[in-house]
Amino acid sequence: MMEDYVPTLLTATPLEGRQLALKLARKTVAAIQPDAEVRQRLRPAYAEDTAQLMLAAQVAAIEFQTIAAANDYWRGQD
Amino acid sequence: MMEDYVPTLLTATPLEGRQLALKLARKTVAAIQPDAEVRQRLRPAYAEDTAQLMLAAQVAAIEFQTIAAANDYWRGQD
Amino acid sequence: MMEDYVPTLLTATPLEGRQLALKLARKTVAAIQPDAEVRQRLRPAYAEDTAQLMLAAQVAAIEFQTIAAANDYWRGQD
Amino acid sequence: MMEDYVPTLLTATPLEGRQLALKLARKTVAAIQPDAEVRQRLRPAYAEDTAQLMLAAQVAAIEFQTIAAANDYWRGQD
Amino acid sequence: MMEDYVPTLLTATPLEGRQLALKLARKTVAAIQPDAEVRQRLRPAYAEDTAQLMLAAQVAAIEFQTIAAANDYWRGQD
Amino acid sequence: MMEDYVPTLLTATPLEGRQLALKLARKTVAAIQPDAEVRQRLRPAYAEDTAQLMLAAQVAAIEFQTIAAANDYWRGQD
Repeated sequence: MMEDYVPTLLTATPLEGRQLALKLARKTVAAIQPDAEVRQRLRPAYAEDTAQLMLAAQVAAIEFQTIAAANDYWRGQD
Repeated sequence: MMEDYVPTLLTATPLEGRQLALKLARKTVAAIQPDAEVRQRLRPAYAEDTAQLMLAAQVAAIEFQTIAAANDYWRGQD
Repeated sequence: MMEDYVPTLLTATPLEGRQLALKLARKTVAAIQPDAEVRQRLRPAYAEDTAQLMLAAQVAAIEFQTIAAANDYWRGQD
Repeated sequence: MMEDYVPTLLTATPLEGRQLALKLARKTVAAIQPDAEVRQRLRPAYAEDTAQLMLAAQVAAIEFQTIAAANDYWRGQD
Repeated sequence: MMEDYVPTLLTATPLEGRQLALKLARKTVAAIQPDAEVRQRLRPAYAEDTAQLMLAAQVAAIEFQTIAAANDYWRGQD
Repeated sequence: MMEDYVPTLLTATPLEGRQLALKLARKTVAAIQPDAEVRQRLRPAYAEDTAQLMLAAQVAAIEFQTIAAANDYWRGQD
């Protein structure tokens, strides 16, 4: 059975929303490249490549946009 | 007749929404490059290229954004 | 007179929405590069280039996002 | 005085919306590179480069998304 | 004190919205690369590079999408 | 304990929204590449590369789009 890594999009705070966005991005890469060893081997290739760090930040920004809308931008929490 | 790979955007859970997003992305690539053998031959080219894995993750993030809105962010499910 | 290739954004099903998204993307490329022979000659350049296949899938994902919103995500159809 | 190339985002049809999207994209490039001769000289560089044609199609897709929302997806027109 | 270059997202017309979008994009680049001389030196690198002109047009299209929504697409102005 | 760098998406002004957008983008890169020395060493690589400056501006534009929606585009502030 596939691990349910996203039972809900609702989080208590924006920070948790940021963490969920990064998690969703990582899980997508894992779904496309399931071999954890390959992913680990590839890590230096992007962790020290600013253009790729920015591509990763774009993915996180798009995922966060979705999560923030799901949580009505945590407006109620203030 | 073309296979109807997306009879609906509605899914029971966010996880199914993630899976549908990846499926939509894959089906688009297949619509542009219909030759399954070519797609299989090309797989190593991106499965071990972090920049391309990130481009794929961007596509999935945009498709998921659409699917999440369609499902009203699965708010009702909690 | 220019062919009206998009009389409406409304489609009966999500699948038709996907097809319209690809059509809109293709028509944009044709509007920028009107020479069909050039476009045909260029096809192998991207049809076997995974990075470009992903760029094309991004365009389709953005166009589909618009079409899905136009159709209220085909919620009524279930 | 600067030419008002976008007095309104409202168009009669989706096709006109597509044309406005391309116009907005072109006008942005012209605002960044005002020299029409340079732009004309640069045209072959992207008109026969599929990756750049896709980048242009992405810009048009984002602009069209805005225009379609402005026109409430031309729902009323049917 | 930092210059408040965006006291409001509201503009009288879509054209002013386009200009604000370009301004926001430029100010972001300036925030990341504060040295005006460096930015000026770098200008030819992108002003004659069609791929980079398209990346800039994408940034402007995303910023404009935000500004257009803020102004309810200037619907009231007609 | 992780620093809560985004207790809320609500800001008093659009300018603060721009600053938060850049902060979110930077924090994402830091979450992916936690080594501050590496990030500092990599800075020249993108601070003088216009294509990467534009990628960074795209991330900021997407984050700002989310923040602006969260603040209802600061409409009330006028």
